[in-house]
Parts: sequence; structure tokens; C-alpha cells
Amino acid sequence: MFSSPPPPSPGQSWDERACIEHLWQPLGQAVQHPWVLQGIGDDGARLHLPADHELVLSVDTLVADCHFPAAIDPEDLGWRALAVNLSDLAAMGAQPVAYTLALTIPSLDAHWLTGLCRGLLALARLHGVQLVGGDMTRGPLSLTLQVQGAVPVGQALLRSGARCGDLVCVSGDLGAAAVALDWLDNDSNDAAITAVRQAYFRPTPRCELAYRLRGQASAALDISDGLALDLQRLLKASGVGARIHSEQIPVNPHARALQGQSRALQQALCGGDDYQLCFTWPGSEAALNACVGDQKQVTVIGRVTAEPGLVVLANGQPMTLAQPGYDHFRNP
Amino acid sequence: MFSSPPPPSPGQSWDERACIEHLWQPLGQAVQHPWVLQGIGDDGARLHLPADHELVLSVDTLVADCHFPAAIDPEDLGWRALAVNLSDLAAMGAQPVAYTLALTIPSLDAHWLTGLCRGLLALARLHGVQLVGGDMTRGPLSLTLQVQGAVPVGQALLRSGARCGDLVCVSGDLGAAAVALDWLDNDSNDAAITAVRQAYFRPTPRCELAYRLRGQASAALDISDGLALDLQRLLKASGVGARIHSEQIPVNPHARALQGQSRALQQALCGGDDYQLCFTWPGSEAALNACVGDQKQVTVIGRVTAEPGLVVLANGQPMTLAQPGYDHFRNP
Repeated sequence: MFSSPPPPSPGQSWDERACIEHLWQPLGQAVQHPWVLQGIGDDGARLHLPADHELVLSVDTLVADCHFPAAIDPEDLGWRALAVNLSDLAAMGAQPVAYTLALTIPSLDAHWLTGLCRGLLALARLHGVQLVGGDMTRGPLSLTLQVQGAVPVGQALLRSGARCGDLVCVSGDLGAAAVALDWLDNDSNDAAITAVRQAYFRPTPRCELAYRLRGQASAALDISDGLALDLQRLLKASGVGARIHSEQIPVNPHARALQGQSRALQQALCGGDDYQLCFTWPGSEAALNACVGDQKQVTVIGRVTAEPGLVVLANGQPMTLAQPGYDHFRNP
Repeated sequence: MFSSPPPPSPGQSWDERACIEHLWQPLGQAVQHPWVLQGIGDDGARLHLPADHELVLSVDTLVADCHFPAAIDPEDLGWRALAVNLSDLAAMGAQPVAYTLALTIPSLDAHWLTGLCRGLLALARLHGVQLVGGDMTRGPLSLTLQVQGAVPVGQALLRSGARCGDLVCVSGDLGAAAVALDWLDNDSNDAAITAVRQAYFRPTPRCELAYRLRGQASAALDISDGLALDLQRLLKASGVGARIHSEQIPVNPHARALQGQSRALQQALCGGDDYQLCFTWPGSEAALNACVGDQKQVTVIGRVTAEPGLVVLANGQPMTLAQPGYDHFRNP
């Protein structure tokens, strides 16, 4: 794929039709999902899900110089744009089926576009998700992806099911992507810098873990705007509160090496772009471990309380958070 | 709806949360579709279609100063953005179920946003289509809508079914929206100018007609980039050609009054933004009339030929088209 026609040279420009023929159609054929009846090429795509599955939809826009640096490697951008959307499906416990890409771009640089497609394809292959449609318009660079997923009827993971006494859990570790923002333009080979940059540019949606949690966890969401803010959203939707222990929060070790424990912890709590899952678990830790199996890296960080609100404890005392969380229109 | 809180004054700004509470959630509740299990408020929306229906997806982006003037009345923009997407569903014969809106906007002007929502709601009510999700990001003004529709299994209208001898048909009349581009900034009360501006700002997706055509018409698409270009796409997808007669093309009378027959005809052939249906019909004209019923304004303009390519005849002679059609990256 992307090998015929001859690979484009830097600066070469395609027209809209060439992009469809050389990029979007091959991309739509490179990964095919059996529930897609018809992909790119008509006024709409057609899907047919089994009757015992619900459809789950999620959409996210990434704008240059707001959600990613405009000079980003287009291959990283392709991966990241799809990853943040798949992460929303994971948060619902849904398996990816198909996605659409609405791309707004100043000009049709063939080399850049080929890189973007390579990044999309790399992650799409891992999850078997098919490109089924899109739109390409001229304008300032931004991407809107919508993912279509499927979940057995009644098994979706919602934000609203947490109950007093449930364990509060997170997957993976936190803080690396937020720390990476300080090193985005740095091409150092330092291992810690490379690792946090990787966390930012190539997040891993936690789909496999999500499949195990559905029908088991009481509530879930993905952490995109920082653990503190996202967990508060889950608690509010469930009508409960939580007490979590800062000592138990899995801070990324590279973030800690680069910024020290205190600041790295704040990034883990209030930074964004982690794309790990935060969920509540109604049973015992033993049952949790049995459920997550080889998806080992799950950490219990606290418990759901009847009293609303989130309390973060440090050495048993409530701590103050550095910032309330991310608002696109407050923090440009 | 949009009456509590107090209507915003011009220039008043909301934060992201206020927009969700005052605009998107009420909009998502104002029109509800029975196949939507869960709309706005979680990581994804959930839908469950009947087993005998296929899901149809279509996505379109509208960029300020490319697809609409940035100074557009936001209510017109809301209508238009949803209309061009519903038109794609109509082209597939699908009934609208749900839509998502990814809005990129420089600032959260409450008055402007309320107008946008009013325009979306007006058209959404007519078609019973529910807002189920979206994203709001800061950046240069653009909207990406994705519509989800449903069609009985096997009855979707495709581009690829036209056969030699079929009638070539269009709905409504053509050319007004393209002519309107010359008068977008004109606030004259002249009836013809008002009419063509209305055609541009408030297109009417031909959903009712589309339901009648499914399982009957051999191929269909909607006319967004001009009859000549869009019909050629249908013909190419079907592996056939067509001869159409310029005298039979239903040119909008107001466009003709403003620009004269010759130029208005070129706009009908090569202008864009009409959002009428172009379709092929495998039976007789009598059967066509019986099928479309009170959706009377359907015009037969020619016939499908075995020989590929589109021939437009004027007084029996092939005519030359003013422009080949719209390419976002050729015609800024």
C-alpha cells in the first residue's frame, strides 16, 4: 500500500482526485471489517451490526497548534488522531468497527498526506478498524475523526454506575504526555525524553482492558483532560464522590525523572493526554485481578464515597491541585 | 428551549461547560429518536437499529470563507450545515436518526452559538434527527457534521446501479444557489435575489422523495458540486454514459431572471450547492410519476447510454461546459 504510484517526493502536490485514488481508497481497503457493507465511494458508507450489538459513536477534533504542534510528524499525527478516538470507544467498552476522517488542510502535499495515512494505518491494523468515509477541505489544518464501535447490548461501560464503596482504579501510568509538552521540540536521544514524547505522540488506547471490564466495572471513562477533572466527571455522573491517595497514583517514572516527584504527580493529576482508563470496581481486589488478567497494570487509587466531590489525600491530608483541569477556551 | 437561562446578549461569552449545559444538552433533548439509547454526556453515544435496517454514515465539513461567508447569520449556518449532510442520507435513501457536531470556533460568543443551535434545531425537528454528540475546539471557524441514517437492508440507493436505457432524472430546479453567490452580501428585498439567497442558505434535503425512490430507482446521488460533475460520478460508478438535453434541465426561474437563460443554464450544469437528487430510473415515465406521487417536481432530462461519458445536447448538438466542476483545491 502507498507503493503504487511511485512514492511522492517532498513538496509534490496532488489534486483531490489523486488523493482519493492514491490514499483514501487504498487506506479504506487495507483494513476491512466484516460488518462494513460498503466503504468509501458513495454518498455514504453502509454498516450492518449484529442484532445483539449496540452501536457506539464518538467524535474528536484535533486542531493544529491547539491539540498538536503544526510541525508534527504527520505519521505521529495520524496515529494520535485515531488513538484518541479509539480511547473513547475503549472507555465505553466498545470494539472498533469503522472510522471517518474529515481533514481540513491548507494544501495537498503528497508526502505529508502519505505520512498521515501511514500513521492511521499502523494503528487501524492493530485494532481492525476500517476507514469508511470522510471529507477533505481546504483551510487551516485540523482533523475530525468519528469512530463507530460495537458493544453487546446492555454491556457498555458508562460514567454513571459508580456506587459508594467501589474501588477507584486507573490503568497504566500517568503524567508522561503532559510532561512531554515541555520537550516537544527537543530531538534529544535521552531515554526519558524519548519515552515521554512517545507517550504524547503515540498513545495506546486501552481496548483490550476495556473488553475485560465490560459487564464487570461499575463505571469508566478515559483520561484525556487529567485524572482529577475526568474522575470528577465520572463521580458527578454517578452522583457520588471519592477519596483517592496521591501515594497510590501511578506516576510515570520518566516524568518523575525529568520533573521530580512533586511536579510529576501534579501532571499525573491535572495534566492531560494520558488516554488511560479510570474506572470503578464494585467487587474485591482479588476479583479485579482475576478480571484484568494479563492486562496487569491496573492500580487501585482509592474508594468511592457517598459524599459528593473528589478528595485527594497526601499523607492523609487533603491536598490542593495545581490547576482545575483543561478547558479549551480558558487555556489557549 | 434556549429560553432558560436568560437569552444571551450580543458579545456575551460562555465557557465550555455553560455551552454544554445551555446549548448542546437541550439541543440533544429537544429532538429524540427512539433508536438512540444514549445521547450526549458520556464518552460515546449509543444507538440500536432494528436488525432489518442498515446503518448509513456520511460526514461533511464546512469551512468559513470556503463553504460559507464567515459573516453568515449563524441560524442560516446551522440549517445549511445539517441540510447538506441530510442530503447525503437522502441520496442513499436513508432516513435520518442521529447526528454529531464537531465545532471549531475562535471564541464562545453566546448569542452567535444560540443562533447556530436555533438553525440546527429548526431542520432537525423537521426530520426527527437527534444530536447525540460532538466536540468543541478553539480555532478558525469550521463545522464537521456526521449524520447517521437507516435504510431497510438491501434497499439503499447506490451510485453504481444505472443501466443503459434508464431515464436520467433530477428533482426540483437547479442553479439558484450558484447564482446566489453573487448576491450573498446584498440585502435587497428584490424577490428573485431573496429567492436565490434562500436556495443557498436554506437548502431542502430531498428525504421524502428519496424514501419513495428506494428499491425503485437504479442509482442516485445528490447534486452538491454541479449536475454535470455529479452525474459523471454516477455514470462512472455504474460503468455507463448518458445523453442529456439542456432544454429539459429545470433551471431555477429566479436564477434565469437574474442572469439570463444562457448563464443560468451553465450555473445549473456546473454550479454547486443545489442539494437536489439526480437519479436514474429503469422503468417508464408513467411508472416514475406513479412512484414519486405528490413529490411532483421530478424532471426527466435524458437517458443512460452504453458508451461512457456525459454528452450534454443543446438543440441536438453537443455543448461545451463553462467549467469542469468543483475541486476544493483548484478553486479556492
